[in-house]
Amino acid sequence: MKIALIQMKGKNSNDDNIEIALEQIEKASASGADFVVLPEMFSCPYKASNFPVYAQEDDGKNCQKLSAAARKNKIYLVAGSMPELEISEENGSRVEKIYNTSYVFDRTGKQIAKHRKMHLFDCDIPSARFYESETLSPGKNVTVFDTEFGKIGLMICFDIRFPELARLMVDKGAKLIVVPAAFNMTSGPAWWDIMFRARATDNQVFMAGCSPARDENAGYVAWGHSLFVDPFGKILAQLDEKENILLYDLQLEQVDDFRNQYKILAARRKDVYSLVECKKATENNADI
Amino acid sequence: MKIALIQMKGKNSNDDNIEIALEQIEKASASGADFVVLPEMFSCPYKASNFPVYAQEDDGKNCQKLSAAARKNKIYLVAGSMPELEISEENGSRVEKIYNTSYVFDRTGKQIAKHRKMHLFDCDIPSARFYESETLSPGKNVTVFDTEFGKIGLMICFDIRFPELARLMVDKGAKLIVVPAAFNMTSGPAWWDIMFRARATDNQVFMAGCSPARDENAGYVAWGHSLFVDPFGKILAQLDEKENILLYDLQLEQVDDFRNQYKILAARRKDVYSLVECKKATENNADI
Repeated sequence: MKIALIQMKGKNSNDDNIEIALEQIEKASASGADFVVLPEMFSCPYKASNFPVYAQEDDGKNCQKLSAAARKNKIYLVAGSMPELEISEENGSRVEKIYNTSYVFDRTGKQIAKHRKMHLFDCDIPSARFYESETLSPGKNVTVFDTEFGKIGLMICFDIRFPELARLMVDKGAKLIVVPAAFNMTSGPAWWDIMFRARATDNQVFMAGCSPARDENAGYVAWGHSLFVDPFGKILAQLDEKENILLYDLQLEQVDDFRNQYKILAARRKDVYSLVECKKATENNADI
Repeated sequence: MKIALIQMKGKNSNDDNIEIALEQIEKASASGADFVVLPEMFSCPYKASNFPVYAQEDDGKNCQKLSAAARKNKIYLVAGSMPELEISEENGSRVEKIYNTSYVFDRTGKQIAKHRKMHLFDCDIPSARFYESETLSPGKNVTVFDTEFGKIGLMICFDIRFPELARLMVDKGAKLIVVPAAFNMTSGPAWWDIMFRARATDNQVFMAGCSPARDENAGYVAWGHSLFVDPFGKILAQLDEKENILLYDLQLEQVDDFRNQYKILAARRKDVYSLVECKKATENNADI
């Protein structure tokens, strides 16, 4: 499984950002990638007030272009995340909701999954004030999709801080968890590596984290350092903060070896504690 | 809360090991400690076949001496761990069970808690073969005890690898989790720091890990590196591999500041996933 993480720098225009992403997808595919990942909110400068402005529905132009790129290059594409507009009717009134959503397309361009960020990032510290919940609604589905390489979990950024979610993904068969994410200059040095290494170690699973490249002039400055971690918690490969593509040949079948050698998952005391998913998917378009 | 971690090297005699521990407790107390922690299996060379030989009941000589030391020095004492012998009757037959048990004594010498290692460490890799389950029975209680400093969770070594357990302790009010532990020369460099930092970060809780000192001539070579970690996941203080006492002034009340600044625990999606303790304590002497 040749997987590429596209650590890109965005602009202030949705269309420019999609163009940059499409170029980088071509480049990754030309390098041999058959699975490509974009960063969180690659289409939109990361600012709560931008999300409603940049949001598109599932069948919008962005998804059409990204689906076409997956089909043309015959790759799986985890399209980072973009603001998603959902229009529904509640009690006869039109309701608009915005989500931080990651779409997944298969080699034929078919949308095979989408994940709506489940844990919204609200923070108010001296170095950063940021409230996703001002404009976004949270998702409520644990997202695992199937590929020819095995099952893959998908979460977005702040979702990684909650061990329950990765655990549930692994219980659903995930051998790799892909995380489009934008840690900042405070959370990055403090927690980026440790969160990926901890989820990998606890769950004996591969982890892939795809960040935007750092742009010191942006309103929200991303940490970068996109990476792959193996089920031992070891960092296999990692970028610095600059624009780049990280390509790696992951052997997902090794997960079983790791789990046989060190029986961590099997040693859980399910007679003492129980972690369960509370609800079945109830969102519109829950899995697709 | 002045807490001391005693990173000691053991001998091949229970009585010698208790003597060493008592000397070190005196020393830590003289340095101002009011809470002292010993390492895992400090009374017994770490080998499955030793556990039944070294095991004592709750009211055995070891506990009597350790209780007296707590009372004399007016300290809280988490007495690392020792093999515990439990004799019971099942269907008219005498049954002996051995546990890897950590006893806690308060400033008056009263035993206020005990934790039986819940996840037994079985491993069979080229560099180490070790099966605790050959001679030990697993505990089944989530152990949190109250002190004048706040509530404190107690787990032993391999227990730390299971995020569920730390989470349940924090749900019971723990502001610090104390972990007598003996990682080895494989698991130490790979996972010692990361496990303590991850549990701290996920749960916004202080962590304290107390290891035996490294003895290259021992059958089981411990990693050492006893440490304190703050609720940000930052290592506050750490020893190397040699015999030493690590004394630190922990401010457990800071936990609330950490949790107000970064609302991680509060951001859990309890509507999506549920982690619960399955059973009430059913062991003899469950909490005391």
